[in-house]
Amino acid sequence: MYVPKEVEIIEVGPRDGLQNEPIPISSAKKKQLIRRLADCGFSRIETASFVHPKWVPQMSDAEEIARFSQELGLTYLALTPNMKALERAIFVHVPQIAVFIGASETFNRKNINRSINDSLTEYKRLIERAKKAGMFVRGYVSMAFFCPYEGAVSLEQVRNVCESLIKFGVDEIDIGDTNGQANPRLVYERFLKLQELFQETSFVAHFHDTEKMALANVIAALQAGITKFDSSIGGLGGCPFSPGATGNVATEELVNMLEKMGCETNLNVDLLKQLSSFAKSLSSR
Amino acid sequence: MYVPKEVEIIEVGPRDGLQNEPIPISSAKKKQLIRRLADCGFSRIETASFVHPKWVPQMSDAEEIARFSQELGLTYLALTPNMKALERAIFVHVPQIAVFIGASETFNRKNINRSINDSLTEYKRLIERAKKAGMFVRGYVSMAFFCPYEGAVSLEQVRNVCESLIKFGVDEIDIGDTNGQANPRLVYERFLKLQELFQETSFVAHFHDTEKMALANVIAALQAGITKFDSSIGGLGGCPFSPGATGNVATEELVNMLEKMGCETNLNVDLLKQLSSFAKSLSSR
Repeated sequence: MYVPKEVEIIEVGPRDGLQNEPIPISSAKKKQLIRRLADCGFSRIETASFVHPKWVPQMSDAEEIARFSQELGLTYLALTPNMKALERAIFVHVPQIAVFIGASETFNRKNINRSINDSLTEYKRLIERAKKAGMFVRGYVSMAFFCPYEGAVSLEQVRNVCESLIKFGVDEIDIGDTNGQANPRLVYERFLKLQELFQETSFVAHFHDTEKMALANVIAALQAGITKFDSSIGGLGGCPFSPGATGNVATEELVNMLEKMGCETNLNVDLLKQLSSFAKSLSSR
Repeated sequence: MYVPKEVEIIEVGPRDGLQNEPIPISSAKKKQLIRRLADCGFSRIETASFVHPKWVPQMSDAEEIARFSQELGLTYLALTPNMKALERAIFVHVPQIAVFIGASETFNRKNINRSINDSLTEYKRLIERAKKAGMFVRGYVSMAFFCPYEGAVSLEQVRNVCESLIKFGVDEIDIGDTNGQANPRLVYERFLKLQELFQETSFVAHFHDTEKMALANVIAALQAGITKFDSSIGGLGGCPFSPGATGNVATEELVNMLEKMGCETNLNVDLLKQLSSFAKSLSSR
């Protein structure tokens, strides 16, 4: 069994984890979470989203959170779903941005109200602009295994969106099992094939723990050579357009497993375990 | 990644799962659980323990449960920790018995109040007698990775007890991560080595989900060539002599994962999911 010497864990709790919380979370509490996450040793944290507050009110303090992340000296990621969002992110000097697209047409339409093609047209301009501004760009591919509306998602569908994002210049692609329906065998096979198809591309694995097999999927992805994983402290998260989906793989559980395997994460698992209850206290789930 | 075409899941909920429940569970309820488990398609279920009722009052109806299991046409396992227990099991024609031993001296003494050597001396006679009675014999090796009292358990310690059990004639050896402290790398390495050392022996993997990595451990064990797994419906279980240990890997989660990977269990996952809530209702945890 292959165990890499080191992996990178990217914490996505403050953004992916909290964005759909129905009850507003104060900026002060978010800052407390981000500061304590920084203390755990993350080199990257996804802290904000510049989506219009009409769509995601929980993220309406994006500028404030971005400035705070900057002050902490963090390399942070922020979601920028359109040009307007990108301009806001550029204005506050966000170092890393992310765009997202569904591998399934139906999910993309329900999630961002646009066809995959229309999304890609927007992202072409957006990524060009972001690269000119010196930003690192992450491309999220959601529902890369199964879709709650279409069922099984083919490698072909995933390949198509990856191909476009890579052509546009993304620095990494994040493959998401957004509704937590993947399984270790599929994870292994899909990541192996994607890396064969796009040999220069850096892939990140993003698992949800809906069926309790997120950690098993991590083991499978490691076997396929993946060394970057998203996770969410306390397992925060869920997706409003993905019925029944639960949170991301919990950071403290992921780090605990990897460290026990002798795979370095450069994170403090004891601090993470302590922080987990605070993170859960922010969630109404 | 290696995925075998088929695996055997052995349900241990009615015995390992329920034995430590502080509130008595009626024989009628146990029978209901066993009957419904049989309906799910198991070829083997561990249903009873012939341990003295003074030590495990929850199992005091062993004869009644054994007869019921027989009537259902089940191939069932029952625990027989000493000669007296074995004679009771022989009397009601139990087809498969199990003995258990800790790989760590301290645990063995706390768990069954005997040294490993004294246990082995008893088991030599016991297994001889059981084999003469035509019984299939399982040898449980508990704390085969970590011990709550001694910490890391060495391969040497596990090998020593396996060696004796094999010499005495056991038909299979069940390697238990009794306190759920193993990790996928260790699981893979240990099972690989044990199978190298004892090439004729059939090993079973028995994981507890204390650290949420039981399913990841299953993936690791599969990679090492293991194709028999214990599990407990609803994740029932725990161990009174293993502080903080939680239940076995949940049967419904294990079967769900394996079936999704295209690995046949010959079990009905929908029935298992339905049965899971009934099983949990029997537990006071």
